[in-house]
Amino acid sequence: MSMYGLHRVVEPAGVLPQQADRLDADPRPRPDEVVVDVERLNLDAASFRQLSEQYGSGEAVRAAVLDIVGRRGKMHNPVTGSGGMLLGTVREAGPESPLGLKPGDRVATLVSLTLTPLRITDGLANWDGRTEQVPCEGTAVLFGRSIAAVLPDDMPDHLALSVLDVCGAPALTYRVVCVAARDGDPSVLVLGGGGKSGSLSLAAARRAGASRVIALVPTEREAKAVDAVGLADEVVIADARDPVAVSKAVGGQVGVTIVCVDVPGCEHGAILATADGGTVVFFSMATSFSAAALGAEGLAADVEMIIGNGYVPGHAEFALDLIRSEPGVRELFEARERQTSQA
Amino acid sequence: MSMYGLHRVVEPAGVLPQQADRLDADPRPRPDEVVVDVERLNLDAASFRQLSEQYGSGEAVRAAVLDIVGRRGKMHNPVTGSGGMLLGTVREAGPESPLGLKPGDRVATLVSLTLTPLRITDGLANWDGRTEQVPCEGTAVLFGRSIAAVLPDDMPDHLALSVLDVCGAPALTYRVVCVAARDGDPSVLVLGGGGKSGSLSLAAARRAGASRVIALVPTEREAKAVDAVGLADEVVIADARDPVAVSKAVGGQVGVTIVCVDVPGCEHGAILATADGGTVVFFSMATSFSAAALGAEGLAADVEMIIGNGYVPGHAEFALDLIRSEPGVRELFEARERQTSQA
Repeated sequence: MSMYGLHRVVEPAGVLPQQADRLDADPRPRPDEVVVDVERLNLDAASFRQLSEQYGSGEAVRAAVLDIVGRRGKMHNPVTGSGGMLLGTVREAGPESPLGLKPGDRVATLVSLTLTPLRITDGLANWDGRTEQVPCEGTAVLFGRSIAAVLPDDMPDHLALSVLDVCGAPALTYRVVCVAARDGDPSVLVLGGGGKSGSLSLAAARRAGASRVIALVPTEREAKAVDAVGLADEVVIADARDPVAVSKAVGGQVGVTIVCVDVPGCEHGAILATADGGTVVFFSMATSFSAAALGAEGLAADVEMIIGNGYVPGHAEFALDLIRSEPGVRELFEARERQTSQA
Repeated sequence: MSMYGLHRVVEPAGVLPQQADRLDADPRPRPDEVVVDVERLNLDAASFRQLSEQYGSGEAVRAAVLDIVGRRGKMHNPVTGSGGMLLGTVREAGPESPLGLKPGDRVATLVSLTLTPLRITDGLANWDGRTEQVPCEGTAVLFGRSIAAVLPDDMPDHLALSVLDVCGAPALTYRVVCVAARDGDPSVLVLGGGGKSGSLSLAAARRAGASRVIALVPTEREAKAVDAVGLADEVVIADARDPVAVSKAVGGQVGVTIVCVDVPGCEHGAILATADGGTVVFFSMATSFSAAALGAEGLAADVEMIIGNGYVPGHAEFALDLIRSEPGVRELFEARERQTSQA
């Protein structure tokens, strides 16, 4: 169990690092570990919001983060249960590490900070406690089973990170649509096709051989944006939470539906839009397990429903390749960043 | 959309029957509908508990159920959101109904009461308001897409209902293990192998060609019971909520893990027990979507995770056939019923 980092668990003994109260963050790597010099922490949005609300001033938020990492050996917010990710440079890779990293590689971790041993050495002196982005000196440890992506040098960090954040979706979409193209109906509907994971999934579906790609978006404005970049054969407008509206907008049923809308209540629309024998993949973390299970039963829908696993081997490279080779995806990402920075 | 019963929705217009506040329960069938003379309602356990707590006396609970059905046209508890199922006899089948039912068939509905138009005509005079089982005269409507099973005449009603209640699990297990036997590793682990859906899933896995079937149960006592009936090649004991304990008990990793333990927190153990390229099917309604998605990512586990759909074509017949042909499954079901009636 060493590849899962069990040996780093201090308390309580015998649990996985994510469940642990406290990890050993000693920056000397075991044979299958990698140690990273940290450059920046990206706190999970929910975690940062909670800390800001609880502690108020930037100074107090900074002290709270230092306290959590000091006590727990990881940046695992005890209230929200969430973490974030980090950027850094590989300091040392153990001889048995399977990650393929070497000293000097600039990496982003794709496993949560909630299971990453972390030590902070600069007292977060360069952070004002007011942003999710935390400049930080210190060290982190990657296990044999941790996931880290080498940051590409042909695009800005912020774009690469934005892509890596959702890179599980296009990789799994590609896999599912390949199976459908072999065994079934490879027409694809992406709910939320204008978003980050949505636009990457549209491109992945087409690359996997989808016979027809439909993007469903909530507004006229977003429809125009997706239409303009040509990622879908058809763009339709509907509220993804309204099953009947989704069904009418799509017209028929598809073989594969990909759910990338991060609001609750999209399960029934996705099920209704999918033909018997088809597949629904839920990437939205707002998905309700019971709404999906009971919804399919209530509609007597013989569809396979898959929980979007954030890990698929090669997912980071695949997503970065999509953003390089599909100008339409990059355009949507950059437009979204412009919007966010204006907001 | 008529096969989903949209035409029966009175309020608000345009939603699916399950989301509706009020349905039209008129007992005259449309061409694709079936009308059933109701004999008994089985209220969902959570719904009955809530009503009992809110209203106290049996008399008041009875009045509350009558009020809900009178107002909503369905037995859809507005607090718990849950329903139950019903038993009855087919009165009339529309000429275009695809369900294959004929007048006189005794049936159990396998779709929830939350979407079944219902009219009560006897004021529930024969019910004291103190049990989930509600003797009832009235009518119910089945849509083209509703699911109902004809009750078999070679076993007691209570046994058949107990089997039908979980019949989605063995059917989907069978399908998933068949695929694994063709394309991958057909060794199978059933978490909660001693329960209703668990024991049926063990039998289904073996029938689908599993190379090895392991049952994981929480206690020595349950292990003995499962071992005695010979449904598994191996029976191991562990707390399914403890990933490391599950992993140690199972020893290696399997190709397919079926989760039938109805307590929260079994996601990580199931993922850890499953080999890369394998499949986890979650039947437990206590499954957390985010715990599964984030757990697999945190463990860098390349496993397909499926939301257990309660509907698979032919699921009722398949489960009834298992209980008839596998004495071990029937023994466990009957032992469980004896326990319940003693408790």
